[in-house]
Amino acid sequence: MHAGTPLSTAPARGVINGGAHRYPLRVYYEDTDAGGIVYYANYLKFAERARTEMMHLLEAGYAEGVTSGEIAFAVRRCEVDYLAPASLNDVLEVRTTISQTRGASMNGHQTVYRGDEELVRLEVGMACLNRDGCPARIPNDLKNAIQSRTSPSS
Amino acid sequence: MHAGTPLSTAPARGVINGGAHRYPLRVYYEDTDAGGIVYYANYLKFAERARTEMMHLLEAGYAEGVTSGEIAFAVRRCEVDYLAPASLNDVLEVRTTISQTRGASMNGHQTVYRGDEELVRLEVGMACLNRDGCPARIPNDLKNAIQSRTSPSS
Amino acid sequence: MHAGTPLSTAPARGVINGGAHRYPLRVYYEDTDAGGIVYYANYLKFAERARTEMMHLLEAGYAEGVTSGEIAFAVRRCEVDYLAPASLNDVLEVRTTISQTRGASMNGHQTVYRGDEELVRLEVGMACLNRDGCPARIPNDLKNAIQSRTSPSS
Amino acid sequence: MHAGTPLSTAPARGVINGGAHRYPLRVYYEDTDAGGIVYYANYLKFAERARTEMMHLLEAGYAEGVTSGEIAFAVRRCEVDYLAPASLNDVLEVRTTISQTRGASMNGHQTVYRGDEELVRLEVGMACLNRDGCPARIPNDLKNAIQSRTSPSS
Repeated sequence: MHAGTPLSTAPARGVINGGAHRYPLRVYYEDTDAGGIVYYANYLKFAERARTEMMHLLEAGYAEGVTSGEIAFAVRRCEVDYLAPASLNDVLEVRTTISQTRGASMNGHQTVYRGDEELVRLEVGMACLNRDGCPARIPNDLKNAIQSRTSPSS
Repeated sequence: MHAGTPLSTAPARGVINGGAHRYPLRVYYEDTDAGGIVYYANYLKFAERARTEMMHLLEAGYAEGVTSGEIAFAVRRCEVDYLAPASLNDVLEVRTTISQTRGASMNGHQTVYRGDEELVRLEVGMACLNRDGCPARIPNDLKNAIQSRTSPSS
Repeated sequence: MHAGTPLSTAPARGVINGGAHRYPLRVYYEDTDAGGIVYYANYLKFAERARTEMMHLLEAGYAEGVTSGEIAFAVRRCEVDYLAPASLNDVLEVRTTISQTRGASMNGHQTVYRGDEELVRLEVGMACLNRDGCPARIPNDLKNAIQSRTSPSS
Repeated sequence: MHAGTPLSTAPARGVINGGAHRYPLRVYYEDTDAGGIVYYANYLKFAERARTEMMHLLEAGYAEGVTSGEIAFAVRRCEVDYLAPASLNDVLEVRTTISQTRGASMNGHQTVYRGDEELVRLEVGMACLNRDGCPARIPNDLKNAIQSRTSPSS
């Protein structure tokens, strides 16, 4: 093992198909609590990882808004329904669709699956902010990519 | 400094008055993110700390349900509104009221304040579970304590 | 419950006596993992909370270096020995002494206790940085406070 | 998007080659702090994720000790050197080798890279425990797999 070796693999970015982004992850010790299941706040981390990777995929080949740090989506509201618990070593998948896109905000629907089983559902309202933390328009290229690839009608 | 010295101080458990539990905390590096503010999932940690301390206070002198681990309250649903961000070193207060108590579940309303300013509001639906993770009745002593001390009408 | 009420209580800052800072905390669900005990990385959070509160206490009445954000101590190295595990609801105490202070760096010794029992020992090497992340001299007032109040010989 | 669709992708498990396990990850908001860099405790999470995936790879086709939860490796000691910080969106790689294997314990060396740059080095001492948390022998199949595939001499 020596420095200089190129990175052998890339992090899981998930895939976009059927109008949704699908992001896989495994449950590690850090995610669980003494109840033996995933701690309730950590699903919000899973959801944010999935949204980040979705943005990286959507922005590939376009002006890089989120990827470059020019803009960021801040969560203004979220509703979380916990249907069933996940456990250590489970392989989960976060499926994300953007249900509504407006000038400077959007709403997303995210579901955490284990196989076919829905474990957690999130409705997330997000505001687009510039580097100063002020509301900013969602760049057109990104908005088009969202609407054509990760919306229910796409 | 040597072992054998009794613990000098107790963790902040907050106080119950005016029908609400009030729990103070400071924002540390671990709570913040690269945006310079508290990471959105961490407010759920703050809220759970506050609920835990409230239960410890309510159970003092009664049969110890949550404190002893006989029962636990699992979050089934939460709605979170992010009104304004908190920053490193801020001193915050989580105020908790239980808006509804049923046989084996209850709803709570929690607000995170910085001084007079509301930063985050949470509506939390919780189920009472026994050691096996099955639904369990909220012990009467605890239910009475909740209704008489941490409900809007109390 | 209404806005406008002053904060009822302050977070636990711990106390300084006998040459050490003593910081109390309770173990919450967020701190534990599926093994039923505190997750190993989380002791580093506890240790950093304690160091932060120690700095706030030491700086009270002096030029506020860490408190105001002018300087920060970045951990360059830490050694952690896990002697015994902590569990949900345990009340712990982090005891911190600064074993060596140099111009722009210092070494600390931190122990996490449950009652008289040592659970985790940390040796932490820290560098003092300015707002730009460059090495900075530890302000004299702070250095004097550290040496007179939280050093083994104090 | 509908339930019933098989999981499209698997989490990144990394690869084993040249006597080391290599695990890729991206830095998300949850990993960073208000200093704009990865919070120091979170590298211990990265390291544990990498060790977990390494065990899953090593156990594939053998008796499943860690994977099935029969045994677990508890960290008894770790030394962490922070050489350079990682930032939001960085792609990192954790490289893990097991430097020494004994009957019921082992030592690992882990380095977090960004490209060719070493950011953090960890030396980790681990004890093998059974389901009751008591010391247990490392299963022979696993021990052989470790020594032949993830040791410096392999």
